[in-house]
Amino acid sequence: MTTQTDIAKRVYDHTWKLDPIIRSLLDTDFYKLLMLQMIKGLYPDVDATFTLVNRTMNIRLADEIDETELREQLDHARTVRLSKKEMIWLAGNTFYGRRQIFGPDFLRFLEDFQLPEYELRKEDGQYILNFAGPWTHTTMWEIPALAIVNELRSRAALRGWGRFELDVLYARAKAKLWSKVERLAALPDLKISDFGTRRRHSFLWQRWCVEALKEGLGDALIGTSNVLLAMDNDLEAIGTNAHELPMVLGALARTDDELREAPYRVLQDWQKYYGGNLLVVLPDAFGTASFLRDAPDWVADWTGFRPDSAPPIEGGEQIINWWRAKGKDPHDKLLVFSDALDVDTIEQTYRHFEGRVRMSFGWGTNLTNDFRDCAPKPNAALKAISLVCKVSEANGRPAAKLADNLNKATGHPDTIAHYLRVFGNEGVGKREVVI
Amino acid sequence: MTTQTDIAKRVYDHTWKLDPIIRSLLDTDFYKLLMLQMIKGLYPDVDATFTLVNRTMNIRLADEIDETELREQLDHARTVRLSKKEMIWLAGNTFYGRRQIFGPDFLRFLEDFQLPEYELRKEDGQYILNFAGPWTHTTMWEIPALAIVNELRSRAALRGWGRFELDVLYARAKAKLWSKVERLAALPDLKISDFGTRRRHSFLWQRWCVEALKEGLGDALIGTSNVLLAMDNDLEAIGTNAHELPMVLGALARTDDELREAPYRVLQDWQKYYGGNLLVVLPDAFGTASFLRDAPDWVADWTGFRPDSAPPIEGGEQIINWWRAKGKDPHDKLLVFSDALDVDTIEQTYRHFEGRVRMSFGWGTNLTNDFRDCAPKPNAALKAISLVCKVSEANGRPAAKLADNLNKATGHPDTIAHYLRVFGNEGVGKREVVI
Repeated sequence: MTTQTDIAKRVYDHTWKLDPIIRSLLDTDFYKLLMLQMIKGLYPDVDATFTLVNRTMNIRLADEIDETELREQLDHARTVRLSKKEMIWLAGNTFYGRRQIFGPDFLRFLEDFQLPEYELRKEDGQYILNFAGPWTHTTMWEIPALAIVNELRSRAALRGWGRFELDVLYARAKAKLWSKVERLAALPDLKISDFGTRRRHSFLWQRWCVEALKEGLGDALIGTSNVLLAMDNDLEAIGTNAHELPMVLGALARTDDELREAPYRVLQDWQKYYGGNLLVVLPDAFGTASFLRDAPDWVADWTGFRPDSAPPIEGGEQIINWWRAKGKDPHDKLLVFSDALDVDTIEQTYRHFEGRVRMSFGWGTNLTNDFRDCAPKPNAALKAISLVCKVSEANGRPAAKLADNLNKATGHPDTIAHYLRVFGNEGVGKREVVI
Repeated sequence: MTTQTDIAKRVYDHTWKLDPIIRSLLDTDFYKLLMLQMIKGLYPDVDATFTLVNRTMNIRLADEIDETELREQLDHARTVRLSKKEMIWLAGNTFYGRRQIFGPDFLRFLEDFQLPEYELRKEDGQYILNFAGPWTHTTMWEIPALAIVNELRSRAALRGWGRFELDVLYARAKAKLWSKVERLAALPDLKISDFGTRRRHSFLWQRWCVEALKEGLGDALIGTSNVLLAMDNDLEAIGTNAHELPMVLGALARTDDELREAPYRVLQDWQKYYGGNLLVVLPDAFGTASFLRDAPDWVADWTGFRPDSAPPIEGGEQIINWWRAKGKDPHDKLLVFSDALDVDTIEQTYRHFEGRVRMSFGWGTNLTNDFRDCAPKPNAALKAISLVCKVSEANGRPAAKLADNLNKATGHPDTIAHYLRVFGNEGVGKREVVI
C-alpha cells in the first residue's frame, strides 16, 4: 500500500507564516454595504469610532488570544482589496430583486476601499480595540474585527489538539448541525438565512454550515448575510440596516427633540436609497415601545420589522398589535427574527405566528458557533461569547443604544441615563443575554 | 483566494479501474494464522470447502452487488502476496507474550501463499460462493471474502451520493462511535478488542474505529483481531481458534464416538502449538451444554472460554458454574465475550461479572458497521447483515455446527439432525440472531 503525500503542500503547511482569516472584503455582512452606500451619500464627513465590546466579562480575551497574532490578522485584513471579479459581481448581480442597487459613484469608491487603521491595547485581560476615523471607513471594520477575534479564539482553544480529537470535534459538530437542519426541514413554510458571520467559529466552518442549510433546506434557505458566501454559493445576500444608523444620528443630535427624531430620520434616509423588502425597521435601538409610540404613520407602510432584543414571540406580538392599530393587515407584513435563535426558539416562533404574518429568521451564533458538548474533552474556550463592535462616538460625541434588554445596552452610563430620560423606559427590561 | 488542486491525484481518481478492498494478506483475523499453522502441521492433506452463507435471507446480495465488481475484487485478492516487511514482522513480533510463535517451516509456507481459486454463481438473488481445495489454503478465504462482500455492499449503497451527504453520514457515524467510546471509557477495568474485520463497513472505516478505540480507551484496548491494523498501529493481534476446527474434525469422524471426541481432540491439537492466554476454549460448536457435560477434567485447566452464541450473562454463568464444579477458582479464569456485542450488552456483562472472573470483549459488527440512523436519508442497504463463511465439507463429507442458538447453526439439515442426536439438544434454543 503506497501512501502518496503531496510534498509541496506539506512543505507549504509547515513553513507558512499566516493563515489569514479575512481574505476578501466581501467576507462581511451585506447590510454593511447597503449602509455604507447611504453613509457615503448622506454623511460623508461624519467621523465614527467603532469599539470592540466583550459582554462576556469573565472571558479574558487578552489571556486567550496572542496580541501578535491579533495584530497580524488585523494588518492582513488591511491589505485586502476588492478583486475585479468581486467588483463585477457587485455591479452585475441582482440584490433583493433589484439590478444595479449600487450606484457607479459608490462602486468607484469601493474599488479603492481599504480598511483604515486600528488602535489596540490590553487592559485588565481584555483588548481595547478601536477604529476611529471617517464613518465611511470605520464602519467596515465591524464584521472582520469580530470574525478575526472569534476565530483567533477558536484557534487558541484548539492549539495542540491531536488530529483525532479534531476529527471527533468536527464530526460531532456536523452531526449536531445536521440534526438541527432535519428539525427545521419539517417546518413547511420556513424562510431562514445565515446571519452567523460575526460570531462564527471560523470561516471554513461557517461555509460548511451554509452548505448544510442549502443541502438540507433547499428553498427554505433564502440566503446568507455573508456577501462572499452568497457569491460563491449562488445564494441571495441578505440584510438591511443596523443600530449604528440611529446610534450615530442620536449622537449627532443637538437637542432632545433631534434625538427623539433620530430613529425616524434614519428611515427617511434609508427610503431614499432602498425599497420593497429592504424596508425593514429595526425598532429597538432606543426601546421598541417608545419607537412605536412616537412613530409617524408612514412607518406602518414599511414592509417589515426586525425585533432584535425582545423575546421573539412577545416582540412580534407587540409589532402586530401596532400594525393593527395603524390599520394594517399583518398578513401583508414581514417579521424578521434575528436575536438569540436556535432550533427550539425558531420552531416555537414559527408555530406561534404561522399563518398570521410573513416571517423570516436570521440565524446567527447557534448556527455557526455551536460546539457545546462536541469536544472529546470539555473545553470552555470553545463556547461562543457575546462580542460586539459598536459605535462609541460620532464626531467626538458619545453614542449609545438601549435595546429592549438593558443588558444589551452599549454606551457610557451617562449617555444611557440621558437616553432613558428622553425615550422612557417602557418595556426596557433586563434579561440574560442569550447569544 | 487560490484553490490548489493536485492535478495528478485528480486524474488518477477519475481514471482508476479498481479500488482494491484487500491489499494485504495480513488484512485478516489473527486466529486464521494461528489455526493455519496447526492445520498445516497436523492436517496438511485435508480438503475443506468454505461457503458463503447469507443468513439475512431477505437481502438479495446478487441484486445489490455487481458480479463483475465482485469478481474483480476476488481476483485482485488472489494477486496479493505477503511483503518482505510483513514477513519480517510476523517472524520478529511477540504475540501473546511469545517470540517466534510461527515456526520457520510455516513462515516459508506463508512466503509463497496465494489465495486459491473460487467458484461463484448466482441463484435466487444470492451469490453461491465456494472455496474448495486444501484446507491449508481455503481457510484463508474466510475473512477476505466476507470483507469484500460487505464492503462492496456498502459501496453499492453509497453509489451516487453527493459529497455532502457522505460527509454527514461519516460525521454522524464518527459522533455515534465516539459516544460509545465515552461510555466504555467509564468502565475502569475494561479489556476490549476489535473483532470487526469480517463485518466491517469498509477497511478505512474499520481503521478509523480502531484508532478511535486506541485514542479513547488507551490500555483498555487490548488489541485488534486484524493483523494488518495490529502491525500498522502497534497494537496486539488478538484471537485464538474458531469453529472450523471442530467442524472439520466432526466431518472427518467415521463414528459417532469419534464425532463426540472431536471438540476435545481439537483442544489437544491446539495445546501442541500454543499455551497461556491462547488456551481459550470455544465450546459451542455442537452445543455448550453437551461440551461441558462430556469434557475431560483437563479442559478445566485451560485459561478461558469464549461463549459465542449463548446470551453473554447466561453463557458466562454456565461456564463459571462448570469451573466451580471442577474445583477451579473463576478469578483465575478468563471469559472472552464476542457475540452480538454493543455498548449496552458490554456494560451489562461487565457489571454482572465485575470482580468475579477475568473477562475481555471482542467487539465486532456494532463497532465497525453501525450506521443506523446515520444516513441523511434512510437507507436499508447500509444495515449490516449476518454474513458468514463456513466450512461446508471436509474431504467430501458434510460439515455442520449447532451453536447454542439453532438460528446460528450451519450445515445440511440431515447433518444437523444427526449431530443433535449425537450431542443432544440440551440448552440449544432458537433466538433471533443479533449481529
